[in-house]
Amino acid sequence: MDERLEKQLAFSLEIDKEKNVLRQTHLSGHGRRENDAEHAWHMAIMAYLLREYANEPVDITRVMLMCLIHDVVEIDAGDTYAYDEEGKKTQKAREQAAKERIFALLPDDQRDELAALFDEFEEYSTAESKYAHALDNLQPLILNHSNGGGDWREHGVNARTVYGRQEKTRLGSEALFRVTDAIIKEHIENGSLPM
Amino acid sequence: MDERLEKQLAFSLEIDKEKNVLRQTHLSGHGRRENDAEHAWHMAIMAYLLREYANEPVDITRVMLMCLIHDVVEIDAGDTYAYDEEGKKTQKAREQAAKERIFALLPDDQRDELAALFDEFEEYSTAESKYAHALDNLQPLILNHSNGGGDWREHGVNARTVYGRQEKTRLGSEALFRVTDAIIKEHIENGSLPM
Repeated sequence: MDERLEKQLAFSLEIDKEKNVLRQTHLSGHGRRENDAEHAWHMAIMAYLLREYANEPVDITRVMLMCLIHDVVEIDAGDTYAYDEEGKKTQKAREQAAKERIFALLPDDQRDELAALFDEFEEYSTAESKYAHALDNLQPLILNHSNGGGDWREHGVNARTVYGRQEKTRLGSEALFRVTDAIIKEHIENGSLPM
Repeated sequence: MDERLEKQLAFSLEIDKEKNVLRQTHLSGHGRRENDAEHAWHMAIMAYLLREYANEPVDITRVMLMCLIHDVVEIDAGDTYAYDEEGKKTQKAREQAAKERIFALLPDDQRDELAALFDEFEEYSTAESKYAHALDNLQPLILNHSNGGGDWREHGVNARTVYGRQEKTRLGSEALFRVTDAIIKEHIENGSLPM
């Protein structure tokens, strides 16, 4: 087998480990905890189906690929819960080291391409990355909503903290933020999310 | 919320169930059984990274989307193991009914689009569907290979049966079939796959 294909298959096998990285979100039907690979799959499909709501036109192939790979670094760095303020202090450094190691398994051109796509997602600057972030927020929100907001209760999160993250959805999609806002307000009203 | 977005979110929530459909493949590192969502995520990334090996030029966005949604019907129909001859007799009918129900949750235009993409995958006729099938074969093969062929042993599968399915990889990618062939031969030689 030539070296290029060998590297591509080594990376393909390595990312299998992402299926073992557990998130704080639970599957619908009060299911088990979701893992990163499942989350990424779900986000990529939602990104495609909801692309008409992006604030700006997006290259949907880039968005889908960004969704699919944005958590690969968590194979080494672990998942940092959106509302874990302590964990977030070291998150960047842990993820940077992981990025170096994991993408380097690929041939150089693909290493550079995927690392750049990962950076683009993190930098929140392009239309694609803003829209991908909207999905990164909305996907766990609809699961948590279907479970009566249980993930928030488990972590003692309040509405201000939730808005702090979810408000950024409007940078990628005003329309999806309106849905987000309605869901959060419903949980405030029924008492499952304290102010 | 308008009816269109409501339908799109209902479908998005429904497909969460795909994470509970278990396959016969085990994760690398002699892990637990893989589920359909994880398999689809893995296939879509591999499809992108290995697209240079497709026999014909492919529209990679269509291929990735095909990979992501090709098993949605298994939410109702269950997974049919590639070498389960009894199960395969009723597979088409079960999957057809599932397709009707699940895609109908979407707005009509997206229902038609995804159902057509699902049919295209099943019909094995376009460059995109042939290449997507190559990944549907290769993804579990590299996991099973990393686990010493354990999935084959568990089901008492022999080399002729494995070739019966895996040989179709060459319709989508001669290069990826050469890798497949080398892997199968290695397992025949070391005795983990009987003739």
